Amino acid sequence: MAAPHRGPSGSDTVTDRANEEAFKRIAAGNPTLIDIRPAREVVPGMTERTVLHAGPPLPPDRPVTGALRGTVIGAALYEGWAETPAEAERLLDGGELDLRSAQDHDALGTYCGGITPSAPVMVVENRAAGTRAYNNFNEGRGKALRYGAYGKEVLERLRWLERVLAPVLREAVQRAGGVEVFPLIAQALHMGDECHSRHKAASSLLANQLGPSIAACPHPSSDLGDVLRFLATNEIFFLNLTMAAAKSVLLAVEGTPATSLVTAMARNGVEFGIRIAAFKGRWFTAPVVPVEGRYFEGYGPADANPDIGDSAICETVGLGAFSLAAAPALARSMGITPSRASQVTLEMYRIVNGEHSLFTIPQLDYRGAPTGIDVRKVVETGMTPITNTGIAHRDGTTGQIGAGYVRTVMACYEQAFTALLAVTSGQRGLTR
Amino acid sequence: MAAPHRGPSGSDTVTDRANEEAFKRIAAGNPTLIDIRPAREVVPGMTERTVLHAGPPLPPDRPVTGALRGTVIGAALYEGWAETPAEAERLLDGGELDLRSAQDHDALGTYCGGITPSAPVMVVENRAAGTRAYNNFNEGRGKALRYGAYGKEVLERLRWLERVLAPVLREAVQRAGGVEVFPLIAQALHMGDECHSRHKAASSLLANQLGPSIAACPHPSSDLGDVLRFLATNEIFFLNLTMAAAKSVLLAVEGTPATSLVTAMARNGVEFGIRIAAFKGRWFTAPVVPVEGRYFEGYGPADANPDIGDSAICETVGLGAFSLAAAPALARSMGITPSRASQVTLEMYRIVNGEHSLFTIPQLDYRGAPTGIDVRKVVETGMTPITNTGIAHRDGTTGQIGAGYVRTVMACYEQAFTALLAVTSGQRGLTR
Repeated sequence: MAAPHRGPSGSDTVTDRANEEAFKRIAAGNPTLIDIRPAREVVPGMTERTVLHAGPPLPPDRPVTGALRGTVIGAALYEGWAETPAEAERLLDGGELDLRSAQDHDALGTYCGGITPSAPVMVVENRAAGTRAYNNFNEGRGKALRYGAYGKEVLERLRWLERVLAPVLREAVQRAGGVEVFPLIAQALHMGDECHSRHKAASSLLANQLGPSIAACPHPSSDLGDVLRFLATNEIFFLNLTMAAAKSVLLAVEGTPATSLVTAMARNGVEFGIRIAAFKGRWFTAPVVPVEGRYFEGYGPADANPDIGDSAICETVGLGAFSLAAAPALARSMGITPSRASQVTLEMYRIVNGEHSLFTIPQLDYRGAPTGIDVRKVVETGMTPITNTGIAHRDGTTGQIGAGYVRTVMACYEQAFTALLAVTSGQRGLTR
Repeated sequence: MAAPHRGPSGSDTVTDRANEEAFKRIAAGNPTLIDIRPAREVVPGMTERTVLHAGPPLPPDRPVTGALRGTVIGAALYEGWAETPAEAERLLDGGELDLRSAQDHDALGTYCGGITPSAPVMVVENRAAGTRAYNNFNEGRGKALRYGAYGKEVLERLRWLERVLAPVLREAVQRAGGVEVFPLIAQALHMGDECHSRHKAASSLLANQLGPSIAACPHPSSDLGDVLRFLATNEIFFLNLTMAAAKSVLLAVEGTPATSLVTAMARNGVEFGIRIAAFKGRWFTAPVVPVEGRYFEGYGPADANPDIGDSAICETVGLGAFSLAAAPALARSMGITPSRASQVTLEMYRIVNGEHSLFTIPQLDYRGAPTGIDVRKVVETGMTPITNTGIAHRDGTTGQIGAGYVRTVMACYEQAFTALLAVTSGQRGLTR
């Protein structure tokens, strides 16, 4: 693969200009949580049996395995499509469930995902562009649908999310006039979150901000107490919101010609895939690679589910590993030192378009987070984006067993770069 | 002043052992917010006209000036001792008010202080030793009694604190079975707080923790919403709680013979004073010095009130400037770089007994906070403790105009060291 030509004229000049414009639109994003609604009412293209999963579309010839299989079974039980896990498996294996890539529907799959028509989703509108994205609620750590668990307590919690949390939060969000997401992220970066694997401060600030509106809701006070307790104790509640916020902002630049900025990085347990702004809705994929990380006591790499999840959308707007310098406490749980964490962030500056004006990193003397991954720079430097990730057990029921990071797969960036070059060179009539 | 003798025997050995024991008791402290009560019911030695102020007792020959004068006027208006500011001033100047050092009553003066008999105070019990300390509520930034403001909105807020916040929090604290303070501080140190000048994370975590109990209180829901809103928006609410927690822990070692650890550092606007564990209730004082810091736009050193406040009790347990490395975002508001912030913390290790096992600093790879200031090491190194501080306007009404830090006054440590030496040498019969 040849390094991209960086001359003063030609396709790179076109791409430079397009990227600069796209970067501005990403940095100017104003994603706002405006509503909570059942997925079927708001997520485009949901059918009655849709289950949205993480990553690019699943290869048609591959069976659904690992944690994702559990997620799909749980989703079928939650929706009442099946009465038993065996029945759900029959539906799945018989092709009677409509498995779709969440991001193809402007939604996100947190870890495995599992959004179905009845699931309440947060509606996040990027007020700067009118683009909207959707994600379900984060259920908390441990056994959860997103990790493939579908036991009684998991299904009961999902029903509580739908019957109690959703209507209370909906009303609280509307009373509050919406919740602007990026100002909370900007504060959280000054409070030890990198806003992907660690969302402790952001979740706490959100609970604080919504608390008064929640208390004013005309619901039984025991429900309000339960909602406040859930928000206060779920340290990664905010993750799903960051993901929807990032997606809503990146959607604003998807489909802008000649633009080489990455707009999605995602894994479905089989393949890693990326999108770039120039090609709306097109995935460039390659097989997933193992996660490097630290396992909780008693677990190891053999227990890990293959890498899955849409949460690298956080890195795509400059958060997560790209802001790892801001999160020394997370670094420790990943098994690396704070100075190594800073090195990760510093390395990412080499492959991005610019620095985010709102997301600043105190540890780097308030330098803006590296934002806007340029596929040309990835290929040129040979340095692929790093993304943080949780590690879940492959059994689908244990839940999280570690935390780590992944060096994403170069083949995807090379494919995207080649596709871009073909189009931009053609447009400009340049010989390369 | 000779450097202290550090031989294998003699008074230093006695002091070394005593310090080691005291350090353990400080590190093992478990301060817990257990109740909210009117000061007159719980603070020892309050008379009907007591106003508790920060710092050592005021010199009898000095008039009360600057912000503290405003605080005392406001306190008299709040209590109804006077109907007008002029009347309050007559009471003050006529010696009809009982001004006392808060710490002489196991209470704290945040900035100027101003605890009076009717003021609700947080009761913090160090469950490891049974020692209790008291502090009022933090009113928030801007115009506040503690800065010497006594306008209508200040008095109205004080009445709201008494009539709404106090009963709701009292009930919430009791429903929650008390709130252990140090675990919240330990988390906040991983979230960018140094837990003196910056308490943003700690305040947020506290609001979260108490939220469900607040929602369950049988009070009008509008009051509950107001309480949640107050807690969610007052980023330094937790400061007064940290101060009471620190005091309750340090009280457990006050009066232990031969112990050279500092148990209080405080300023009253005229004098800086310290206590050491060997001498219960005895102050060693010297004139205050100016604060180094960064002023908000439009203000400068000429506007600053002379240094006042008991909040250096935070540094006395290893927080504040002693943990400044943990708070890069605060460093910026103080006008210093994150690396300079780390240097401040690293310097403080040279004058303390040990490292706190619970208070760890991610930026220093989880080294425990420097804790237990040893007056011998201060004298020996010539390096006095640094304490963070807010800077308030001397007019008493503007409120905070900057943030900074103070290198405390060597003369106090020299006096304390000399006094200790006299006692321990005498006891051991050593010639020095």
